[in-house]
Amino acid sequence: MMDKLIIGVDIGGTTIKMALIQESGEIVEKWVITTNTKSNGIHIIPDIAAAIKNKIRERSIDSSSILGIGVGAPGPVNMQTGILYTAVNIGWEKPVALREELQALTDLPVVIENDANVAALGEMWKGAGDGARDVICVTLGTGVGGGVIVNGDIAHGIKGAAGEIGHITAVPVNGYYCNCGKYGCLETVASATGVIRLATDELSRNAEPSVLREILSQQGRLTAKAIFEAAQKGDKVAVKVVDNLTFYLGLSLANLGSALNPEKIVIGGGVSHAGDTLLKPLRAKFKEYAFPTVAESTTIEVATLGNDAGVIGAAWLIKYKH
Amino acid sequence: MMDKLIIGVDIGGTTIKMALIQESGEIVEKWVITTNTKSNGIHIIPDIAAAIKNKIRERSIDSSSILGIGVGAPGPVNMQTGILYTAVNIGWEKPVALREELQALTDLPVVIENDANVAALGEMWKGAGDGARDVICVTLGTGVGGGVIVNGDIAHGIKGAAGEIGHITAVPVNGYYCNCGKYGCLETVASATGVIRLATDELSRNAEPSVLREILSQQGRLTAKAIFEAAQKGDKVAVKVVDNLTFYLGLSLANLGSALNPEKIVIGGGVSHAGDTLLKPLRAKFKEYAFPTVAESTTIEVATLGNDAGVIGAAWLIKYKH
Repeated sequence: MMDKLIIGVDIGGTTIKMALIQESGEIVEKWVITTNTKSNGIHIIPDIAAAIKNKIRERSIDSSSILGIGVGAPGPVNMQTGILYTAVNIGWEKPVALREELQALTDLPVVIENDANVAALGEMWKGAGDGARDVICVTLGTGVGGGVIVNGDIAHGIKGAAGEIGHITAVPVNGYYCNCGKYGCLETVASATGVIRLATDELSRNAEPSVLREILSQQGRLTAKAIFEAAQKGDKVAVKVVDNLTFYLGLSLANLGSALNPEKIVIGGGVSHAGDTLLKPLRAKFKEYAFPTVAESTTIEVATLGNDAGVIGAAWLIKYKH
Repeated sequence: MMDKLIIGVDIGGTTIKMALIQESGEIVEKWVITTNTKSNGIHIIPDIAAAIKNKIRERSIDSSSILGIGVGAPGPVNMQTGILYTAVNIGWEKPVALREELQALTDLPVVIENDANVAALGEMWKGAGDGARDVICVTLGTGVGGGVIVNGDIAHGIKGAAGEIGHITAVPVNGYYCNCGKYGCLETVASATGVIRLATDELSRNAEPSVLREILSQQGRLTAKAIFEAAQKGDKVAVKVVDNLTFYLGLSLANLGSALNPEKIVIGGGVSHAGDTLLKPLRAKFKEYAFPTVAESTTIEVATLGNDAGVIGAAWLIKYKH
């Protein structure tokens, strides 16, 4: 008898990641198609359906051996109705009946979920979460995203806004303006752009010589990578910036930790590539601000699945939520 | 046929609250026994069992019509094993097999849970939570306690420390020392004693005339009630104190809100009796610091069950967790 398979789909602004995945969560094959955002994204669902049908044909898979299609989508979803409310970066400005349309085109069961949440589910299931039932995932990328898993399931909240960890007010006084309309959001100081902003500000206040000043004058701009590399080498300005960043992030995560005592807090995204230069001070701040039992029992880990987290978490949806 | 009944038990430091409760959550009768903390509390479980057996006899209840006994206990519990790790204020310094012992003495099924969590479950089920599936409860009493309900169930976390909202670090810089060993916990500024401390400090810094200064010199001490009454009448020092308190509490709850987007945040305990003098500025701060969707969809309410929340939440355990 053939193993049952699941199709995982992770819809992004430029590409759609797809994978054939075993029921156990192992990837059999993954591939990528381009996200066609033309005409308000009307081609996206047919393109996904065609790619799935081609793959099934190409590998001569009996469709009765496919359990279903899990989909992570870049916007707030209603899991009950299968509707994606809005996903501006792929051209969907109005609600789309993503589940029903994809089911109709493929004749396969579909479950949909927000993309930050499927990434968290992926890390919980097969990544750094390692099967833990209580996990907080934070992605430090261009922005800061998050997913909160309690008792083995995603927290959505009353309007699907649970997991908006990037919009925790980390700087309540004199914070930077955030695109969400508030000031002082964690995203304004802990995303890749946030770290650069902290560094630029620190350079303008701080007369210490710094390699960051040289990079800025030579290349016209800083990167998060350059800042962490400078901090690792002991550059005083860079160390101060990483101190500030880990204070805001460590305090925010400690306070969530005291409310949820997760087994793991998983940090992903580009900024997490800084490794120990980020993790060591972050863990120290977390221990300083978390309730003692939480400081001892909740660990902070780096995400391990990278770009595969989305398709794997999407497959989890079919295995456990269908 | 007779209605099925549940026995709810809420073990406190001075009294044990007990109630006969219908399966629907309505209280049939409630009564109280004294907590006998002598000899490391060895009388407590037999006393509870005897009180239950007496009540069953007194009302000629057929014990087959009793679904079980739900128990809220003042310490961390392991729901799987039915063990209460420690409950110093009732003399239990070592782990107690609360569930097994009470089952053996009563021949009835028993489910145990931490008392802050049962109070939260009670408010979710029959109180201000009004059946919402995502609720955060905060009790502002001598200390600050909490319970976090996600997807209709209590968050425990990996070591049972979820819900320690009182130990969120609300004042990361120059905070007061807290009994937990950290500095700046929410409990140090938002409990009844915390409000008094904020007021005493404000009086020593602030030269404004204030009724609080008169009360302090006449009666030797302030109360949370006096502070809120003065604030309601426009006393400038008292208004400043309530502003500070609601800044710390509103920011902490907004940040939890952005992570969990609960339908309701329910505020209980003595400090919540201040009503609108507390709620109005608290809601304003919450809206200022919460992610916009959360600010619009998560509401802050005052607890409605008072001292009955514990026995009702304990009954919920039998209905849904047994």
